[in-house]
Amino acid sequence: MFGARCLLRALRFCFSAPCPRHKPSAKLSVRDALRAQNASGERVKVQGWIRSVRSQKEVLFLHVNDGTSLESLQVVADSSFDSRELAFGSSVKVQGQLVKSPSKRQNVELKAEKIEVVGDCDAKDFPLKYKERHPMEYLRQYPHLRCRTNVLGSILRVRSEATAAIHSFFKDNGFVHIHTPIITSNDCEGAGELFQVEPSSKIKVPEENFFNIPAFLTVSGQLHLEVMSGAFTQVFTFGPTFRAENSQSRRHLAEFYMVEAEISFLENLQDLMQVMEGLFKTTTTTVLSNCPEDVELCHKFIAPGQKIRTYAKKQLSNWGADLHTEHEKYLVKHCGNMPVFVINYPLKLKPFYMRDNEDSPQHTVAAVDLLVPGVGELFGGSLREERYHFLEQQLARSGLTEAYQWYLDLRRFGSVPHGGFGMGFERYLQCILGIDNIKDVIPFPRFTHSCLL
Amino acid sequence: MFGARCLLRALRFCFSAPCPRHKPSAKLSVRDALRAQNASGERVKVQGWIRSVRSQKEVLFLHVNDGTSLESLQVVADSSFDSRELAFGSSVKVQGQLVKSPSKRQNVELKAEKIEVVGDCDAKDFPLKYKERHPMEYLRQYPHLRCRTNVLGSILRVRSEATAAIHSFFKDNGFVHIHTPIITSNDCEGAGELFQVEPSSKIKVPEENFFNIPAFLTVSGQLHLEVMSGAFTQVFTFGPTFRAENSQSRRHLAEFYMVEAEISFLENLQDLMQVMEGLFKTTTTTVLSNCPEDVELCHKFIAPGQKIRTYAKKQLSNWGADLHTEHEKYLVKHCGNMPVFVINYPLKLKPFYMRDNEDSPQHTVAAVDLLVPGVGELFGGSLREERYHFLEQQLARSGLTEAYQWYLDLRRFGSVPHGGFGMGFERYLQCILGIDNIKDVIPFPRFTHSCLL
Repeated sequence: MFGARCLLRALRFCFSAPCPRHKPSAKLSVRDALRAQNASGERVKVQGWIRSVRSQKEVLFLHVNDGTSLESLQVVADSSFDSRELAFGSSVKVQGQLVKSPSKRQNVELKAEKIEVVGDCDAKDFPLKYKERHPMEYLRQYPHLRCRTNVLGSILRVRSEATAAIHSFFKDNGFVHIHTPIITSNDCEGAGELFQVEPSSKIKVPEENFFNIPAFLTVSGQLHLEVMSGAFTQVFTFGPTFRAENSQSRRHLAEFYMVEAEISFLENLQDLMQVMEGLFKTTTTTVLSNCPEDVELCHKFIAPGQKIRTYAKKQLSNWGADLHTEHEKYLVKHCGNMPVFVINYPLKLKPFYMRDNEDSPQHTVAAVDLLVPGVGELFGGSLREERYHFLEQQLARSGLTEAYQWYLDLRRFGSVPHGGFGMGFERYLQCILGIDNIKDVIPFPRFTHSCLL
Repeated sequence: MFGARCLLRALRFCFSAPCPRHKPSAKLSVRDALRAQNASGERVKVQGWIRSVRSQKEVLFLHVNDGTSLESLQVVADSSFDSRELAFGSSVKVQGQLVKSPSKRQNVELKAEKIEVVGDCDAKDFPLKYKERHPMEYLRQYPHLRCRTNVLGSILRVRSEATAAIHSFFKDNGFVHIHTPIITSNDCEGAGELFQVEPSSKIKVPEENFFNIPAFLTVSGQLHLEVMSGAFTQVFTFGPTFRAENSQSRRHLAEFYMVEAEISFLENLQDLMQVMEGLFKTTTTTVLSNCPEDVELCHKFIAPGQKIRTYAKKQLSNWGADLHTEHEKYLVKHCGNMPVFVINYPLKLKPFYMRDNEDSPQHTVAAVDLLVPGVGELFGGSLREERYHFLEQQLARSGLTEAYQWYLDLRRFGSVPHGGFGMGFERYLQCILGIDNIKDVIPFPRFTHSCLL
């Protein structure tokens, strides 16, 4: 074995540049080219895909996009370049001078000296057509190409920014990141239908199960996070979760992402709601500040009803019956189309791990949901039952005592009051971008009857 | 639907503090308490688990740990506190004054005014014994408790730091993060044995397959990343991957994490190796700087042979036959126990997507592996075949033409030279920490015959 410092030294003399785009050559991303201040004829090289071609008498205008921003770079070429080769969708390398643009539409443009077509694109066969705005349903048929449209480009850049912002929020607040397992032998949380996992038929092993016991895809990392909050106090996970539900809804997927957090020594829902809000606000502020054009595109073209409204309000409600989608919608609407925290649900409707409020005759648990307009439940959380005997009773009631001895152990050895929550990441994106269908905010949607690529 | 700015405003007036640990109360994490400069009697509250108890004539010394650092906070209490209640493993809340410690072992200590036992811990039943250093094999039996030991605490804090550093490296270098799918219908990459996914037996649907086609757990996000590099130029993913291999090796798991990157307009292996090195160096530098004590603990107790050596060397080799573990080990040893890049493997040994070097009679592909001491293959990468006709031939040779029409499409519409790599995240941790068994660098290891919790 081998020390980290030793390995670092061993590699020190090999190369110095961290990344090809930082090489001495004047290779620039479109984003960096567009941001150039006082462009005054520097020779640069830009690479990307042609998004539009416009031919005038003496001049040819190209727009080149490399996915680093929504905006494309305008390339100006004289008529010596053959416009037939420079087709929509083709990939090109352009060398030239970065100059101030005479037009108000952009700050800079690239005066081409050399244009090389790297890969051409047959307009006849290419499913994306020049100057057409394709419906989202149409684009879903081409998961390998739709990311080259403006709208999917914007959504996926926002997704990437939000992912980074979520990691930063937790790191900045002292949370330890945990990879909770994807394959699990917990099958009885009651969080929905499960996918089972077995080696593919080609290699069936003699044993009944590869893992000796039935194994499933996780529906939540919560219980595993609780293990870790008993060592690190504040922990989070951000990974895929699964439901084998037969649903074609615009709010459900078979594979989706959850952000989950668990906090030890946390004693009331108010403290939990503060973290939920902190996460929502910090992430959203970062996204709005880092990719305003991408957010605006979604609001403008996808959700034209989208308006920046000015009222500010929140409702905290007690509730005495289970909430279905219709109820959630009603509640949000009734509260002025505002995000609504709903707290304290009846014990008999909720899973075994939620903390008993001991408030008979209502008999509720310390649960909290955050409902938002258009999407419904965005966050779900609760205090967890940290008292051994209460939890033992709940497990017995559900017939789960044997399977959850390890979970009871957490209450036998240095138990602490704690709580946590989960946020559906795709629903979060739907919410801030106003995207109607959840299938359009994930790169490769999986749902009943569909698993393309 | 509802705009992001609107939601932000709606939530603005509800709460202000981002996180409970920032509340006006003087609640401090152990890490922050230990870092306090000029401690001079501030009243603070610290929470955590008792790691040791030492009783002297008039004084009681406790060490309290909350997982925010390897080091515990020393609590000094007078004999009025009952030491029998303050047992190893119990959780406590301590209020008192933070003062300079008279001992050289620590800068500060907490003079207790109030100690509350939150959850006790029965030493008799607790599998972790006071003052014992348990073997790693023993700890693996208790995945729900082992994170409370010093060594697992350090490993998992390093894992969390490395995760954050990897996200930062790619963000800082302009890569877009992509969640590549976990469930996929690609079953023929030849990267190893597959797990198949079906709804659990309880809810077998009438159709043969939930997704209409057989679906598997991903073995790599590469092909999906290639889709995205055709839109965003530079992309990465960091997620779970799976192999249904019947292996009990110290280097293999059924579920493990891979960092994968894909870069468009990349034309030679040298540029790819620069990114691989940049990732390795930047991540390792960050880990060494942010948690030196955790790294040191691993080097000291787990890998006592670990030495910071001073030589610096690297080998680039051409190779003409397949490499097995023994060959890898030999190569690394032969090159002075240094990381070794091996490039240009025979085409007939490698998958269809690698770029043909057209260098007959050797006939190699532009592949690169980075081998490191003790671990073997840490990175694997290649240029991808971007030329339609070359790829078409390779697919035909492998009988995959029909299944990979979508992959051929990427070469029909604006194809670009590109390349990418994958790094095994657990192997990376093994490498920098000197941990012998891969099962000890992941929170919940899954392998043949084992899927605990």
